[in-house]
Amino acid sequence: MTVHLKDIAAYTGVSIKTVSNVVNGNYEHVGPKTRTLVLEAIKKLNYKPNVAARHLRKAPVGVLAYAFPDLANPYFAEVGEAIVAVANQQGYTVLLDFTSAQRDKELNVLTGLQPHLLDGVILDSHALDLEDIVLNDTQRPIVLLGERLFGASVDHILIDNVAASYTATKHLLSLGKRRIAAIGVQQCRSEAPSLRLQGFIQALTEEGLAVDEALLLEGGLWHRADGAAAMRRLLSLDEPPDAVCCFNDLMALGALSVLNESSYRVPGDIAIIGIDDIEDGRYANPALSTIAPDKHEIARLAVTLLVERIKGTRNGPPECIKAPFRLCPRASTLG
Amino acid sequence: MTVHLKDIAAYTGVSIKTVSNVVNGNYEHVGPKTRTLVLEAIKKLNYKPNVAARHLRKAPVGVLAYAFPDLANPYFAEVGEAIVAVANQQGYTVLLDFTSAQRDKELNVLTGLQPHLLDGVILDSHALDLEDIVLNDTQRPIVLLGERLFGASVDHILIDNVAASYTATKHLLSLGKRRIAAIGVQQCRSEAPSLRLQGFIQALTEEGLAVDEALLLEGGLWHRADGAAAMRRLLSLDEPPDAVCCFNDLMALGALSVLNESSYRVPGDIAIIGIDDIEDGRYANPALSTIAPDKHEIARLAVTLLVERIKGTRNGPPECIKAPFRLCPRASTLG
Repeated sequence: MTVHLKDIAAYTGVSIKTVSNVVNGNYEHVGPKTRTLVLEAIKKLNYKPNVAARHLRKAPVGVLAYAFPDLANPYFAEVGEAIVAVANQQGYTVLLDFTSAQRDKELNVLTGLQPHLLDGVILDSHALDLEDIVLNDTQRPIVLLGERLFGASVDHILIDNVAASYTATKHLLSLGKRRIAAIGVQQCRSEAPSLRLQGFIQALTEEGLAVDEALLLEGGLWHRADGAAAMRRLLSLDEPPDAVCCFNDLMALGALSVLNESSYRVPGDIAIIGIDDIEDGRYANPALSTIAPDKHEIARLAVTLLVERIKGTRNGPPECIKAPFRLCPRASTLG
Repeated sequence: MTVHLKDIAAYTGVSIKTVSNVVNGNYEHVGPKTRTLVLEAIKKLNYKPNVAARHLRKAPVGVLAYAFPDLANPYFAEVGEAIVAVANQQGYTVLLDFTSAQRDKELNVLTGLQPHLLDGVILDSHALDLEDIVLNDTQRPIVLLGERLFGASVDHILIDNVAASYTATKHLLSLGKRRIAAIGVQQCRSEAPSLRLQGFIQALTEEGLAVDEALLLEGGLWHRADGAAAMRRLLSLDEPPDAVCCFNDLMALGALSVLNESSYRVPGDIAIIGIDDIEDGRYANPALSTIAPDKHEIARLAVTLLVERIKGTRNGPPECIKAPFRLCPRASTLG
């Protein structure tokens, strides 16, 4: 028996409009208690949204989407390039969808676009909630990238973020640096900053070093300008750091530009390292040390799993796979 | 009366297969004479390809595509970001289509994707022929960006490329530089290199300087590595240049990294300038002088014209509009 919105409404005693709001992720006018009530009823009655859309589903069209949050960060362009290359080898066209980390745009790529348009989506989400994924039932397979929505019951590819920043910080410690700052520490919807902070603190703690709160700086949008602003604040301290671990390369490049205009020498006075290994950093002056996620492996895994789900050759439970990364020490730490 | 492929075949005396090849742009097995014959017949008989697709055409779906050739070049990401911003304001979603400058991918965005998927396309083409655009009759409006396919009978937005490199070169001359090299000179399907070379030569000639062929270097894919390789060749000359005009910023950043590792000082020994004003260059060491195309105006014009064509509020002949640019002198030329 097909369960409809009105059945959920009758079961919970809330209006159809409210049930619809929960199903469509419009939580503004729905209190947390009602939301939980409706979500539990949806699970209990085994309600499947978009059954109509499912009946409309057609043969594969050979098109995948890669939805990513930030066009200004070459990391996503480099991953996108790798995804396009792998997908093309497997006969798929890839459309890139730039979401600005906005919830409505991320929802749009999952459910809003024409139902026949896409066979599947690779989504680096920065705004959706777990329910958005769980409730999504357009039968359009999804592979998640990045540090959010763990337990969303879809395949998920990422790197070990704690180990990445731990490795970067250990590298700075191995060079004799002791007063190490971090740029990119913040509360936000992605878990990347807190995981990277965790690895940073772990490395310092293992070395018997205390964490100085004054050396933990936010990084705004994680762009060059944010790294530059944070570096200026660090240089204005009575006791500036002797090294900086930036939680991505763009912030590190911004920080580096401030150091280049200062009287501090890199890496003698202040060493600097990032995470991402974007091409930009390899051509910087001095060249930027970094942690390099294996972008080709991330792309290969994401496309392969997605295509297998589309073709139905993979039917097991969702997998969460960690792609490898490696330390790339360059002149910004080694001199 | 509807003209069919077989009418063209009968009129020209070639096979339907050959006519189909010409219509679909598969020229491998069609000689130039036959191709011209068929194209002339198509014009004369007023053949309209894809009449079937036209009948399938539905109401607007609120989706535009921006198809661009190179994900590794932030110039296209920055233009794309501006296009997305303007299109969103006007209520449109934008899908980004990365074509790798490949003909089949560019054709795909014009005609191959689901007919109901896209309302219109902004295309920075690096591989299509004029006939591909002229013959395209999916009634999906197109706006062209960049230096190709002039006279394609669709709206076209670009900057004055001759004036751009002329301005860059004049800036180097105004600083007393006399032995000026150019990187990015080459034969390719885009006209940007030859237009930029024209402006470069014009500036030298006005100053009474001869063009030294040894100082005109190719630039491969116009990436950082290509600029670096060209700069190494220039430094190996008996008489290296005292300034370099790179035909884009990425090559300039590659060239700069080679100079930073050499004993030459920038800009004292060798000044360097690019074209594009990507953010990367603003944070380089030294900061990169450049020519900044007005990317927001390019995006605004492209989206506005496209949306007007889609809505039918613009019906006049196609326009070719030049967006403004400006010189941004920074430390790589001014010191």
